[in-house]
Amino acid sequence: MTDLSLLSSLRREAREAPASGIVDVVNHGRTRPGLIPLWVGEGDMSTPAFIAEAATRSLVAGETFYTWQRGIPELREALARYISRLYGKTYEAERFYVTGSGMQALQIAVRMLVGSGDEVVVPTPAWPNFGAAIGIAGATPVPVPMQLSNAGWTLDLDRLAGAITPATRVICVNSPANPTGWTASREELAAILALARRHGLWIIADEIYGRFVYDGSERAPSFRDVMDAEDRIVFVQTFSKNWAMTGWRVGWLEAPPALGDVIENLIQYATSGVAVFIQRACIAALDQGEGFIAHQIARARAGRDIVCRGLSATGRVRFAEPAGAFYLFFSVDGEDDTRRLAIRLVDEANVGLAPGTAFGAGGERFLRLCFARKAEDLEEAVARLARALT
Amino acid sequence: MTDLSLLSSLRREAREAPASGIVDVVNHGRTRPGLIPLWVGEGDMSTPAFIAEAATRSLVAGETFYTWQRGIPELREALARYISRLYGKTYEAERFYVTGSGMQALQIAVRMLVGSGDEVVVPTPAWPNFGAAIGIAGATPVPVPMQLSNAGWTLDLDRLAGAITPATRVICVNSPANPTGWTASREELAAILALARRHGLWIIADEIYGRFVYDGSERAPSFRDVMDAEDRIVFVQTFSKNWAMTGWRVGWLEAPPALGDVIENLIQYATSGVAVFIQRACIAALDQGEGFIAHQIARARAGRDIVCRGLSATGRVRFAEPAGAFYLFFSVDGEDDTRRLAIRLVDEANVGLAPGTAFGAGGERFLRLCFARKAEDLEEAVARLARALT
Repeated sequence: MTDLSLLSSLRREAREAPASGIVDVVNHGRTRPGLIPLWVGEGDMSTPAFIAEAATRSLVAGETFYTWQRGIPELREALARYISRLYGKTYEAERFYVTGSGMQALQIAVRMLVGSGDEVVVPTPAWPNFGAAIGIAGATPVPVPMQLSNAGWTLDLDRLAGAITPATRVICVNSPANPTGWTASREELAAILALARRHGLWIIADEIYGRFVYDGSERAPSFRDVMDAEDRIVFVQTFSKNWAMTGWRVGWLEAPPALGDVIENLIQYATSGVAVFIQRACIAALDQGEGFIAHQIARARAGRDIVCRGLSATGRVRFAEPAGAFYLFFSVDGEDDTRRLAIRLVDEANVGLAPGTAFGAGGERFLRLCFARKAEDLEEAVARLARALT
Repeated sequence: MTDLSLLSSLRREAREAPASGIVDVVNHGRTRPGLIPLWVGEGDMSTPAFIAEAATRSLVAGETFYTWQRGIPELREALARYISRLYGKTYEAERFYVTGSGMQALQIAVRMLVGSGDEVVVPTPAWPNFGAAIGIAGATPVPVPMQLSNAGWTLDLDRLAGAITPATRVICVNSPANPTGWTASREELAAILALARRHGLWIIADEIYGRFVYDGSERAPSFRDVMDAEDRIVFVQTFSKNWAMTGWRVGWLEAPPALGDVIENLIQYATSGVAVFIQRACIAALDQGEGFIAHQIARARAGRDIVCRGLSATGRVRFAEPAGAFYLFFSVDGEDDTRRLAIRLVDEANVGLAPGTAFGAGGERFLRLCFARKAEDLEEAVARLARALT
């Protein structure tokens, strides 16, 4: 009774924040020997030594004091160089703000833009943390389910427009998308931007998988290809995926410099900046990381082929071959309860997958498999899944 | 005009989040050669090698993956050992949650407890981030000014009780206090707790300076000395001060285990945990840090004597000798505009102080000086200040 009384005295939005539907399954299988974990968005390689060593050098040099809330100038310059090179235009360092994870970039973007009574349109299936961060801020995520057809996953732009109400403040756009692999074309991004402009909405753009595309391009289409400098777009970004730095908890925001003071204050009152020694590692990643990224993408491409081919061969699964990101999102004929199925696959196949129920409207009947992993593990995982599913 | 339009499209609470009144002065003097910086709450020693090396070892071992949202079990156990030893009771690891800074511990406590329409009572002068974090969450900080008399700073408990309204949800209590050095007695803490119990309020307890006391005790009185396990108290804590880890951005929450799932979710949707290699450093700090803490406290005690004696000798300043924390909070006769005075002291004395205007009601006529620094610097700073003030 005391526990109930304690809980009921908390703020409703905090109390009702959803647990991650992935963790539920992870907790079921976390300690199983030999389990192949494909349930979270993380590869199997630890951070490359050239990145970790930059942090170590900084620690040895005693860089352990408070620093710039927006990030050290050297890292902001490195971000500007990286983005300028990749997107073929000149971006100023003032557009970049270092954050304590991509998740924190999202949290700050949300807290900057919405509160009680506001609505945020989120195409689904989607990374669950979008909706949760919006809900904790007191706003309401409005899902717009995407469709899976023979043409792959598609976002119906009329349906997106139809979800906009007078309370809408923001559209979240994640491309390449977790979990579906949907990758917006330049034309689709232009159409979404036109819609946002027409309604005076902000866009929170999550292009963190922008390097993970499988058509041979260096990167996916980006809002940067179609936007003007003054457009209301905030990019949320992370070092986690490109540079195998999931555990470091460091990311960045890219936003118009006019927002700088507001973003600085929100960083100040969230975690008050990021460790300098971590930022030194980030500079090494940006400046010297292209070889490692190429290696990771080649590995993910091979992984994608293995899982697509292997699961197709079962004759029981349905999916769109992902154009981007590093997940296969698939359904299994006759299996409706994917949470139960994910638990069964832990028990019977010793493979960890994420249940689609975690990803919101339209994802319930799917499972998510992360293929950013060595071929040997993926071959074995697919063989085990095939046995359990057929 | 575009910038104004961008800003006006942001959420009001974010747009209006106050800039730190300290940073304003820091920016004025940041680049001055020879300036003695006593404006922020940070010592002059970098993190001890035995702590930094634990992080390096973890990095070399490849601990760069996602981890437990509540903190790695080994660190939660180390926190339980540390707190149990220091406070003379047995505390379970389940009460401790690792956060990405003490600031984040506060942010999560605030977001767990209050939102729009709620009020939080905050004795002032106070660390400005309390009020700012409360305001960003949409709630209202209600200041209760403390008094400075010949008996030192005192908190009038009747005045505290008088600030409580039906909208009040939380009382923030910072003891030993930044910036005043006020250190609540056990009886005062019991009285505040009784008040909170009577009104069904939560207490956010900031006892981060609990080791920095100058009466020879090992620690300041704590709510832990007077509370029951089921009391509505959340402790916000940091590794910054005790172990010279300001730049690491790591702290912890201590709260009833019944809140564990809610806290885990709020961590998940804020920064999704703290780097394992940082947590390894924290374990070293807790388990092997007592010698370093003793050294720091002895140094701060010497620093306190230097600045109290030196500024008294000017005949122009007024202060209460601080019982705890590591700040001298003093007024200067005839000087009302302390922001201007702080700027002048940068220009004329080359000493950086924080203006009392940053610390809210009752602090406006004071300056804050951090004395966690080597004696030589403090002697020089005091000599320069004496010349500029007399």
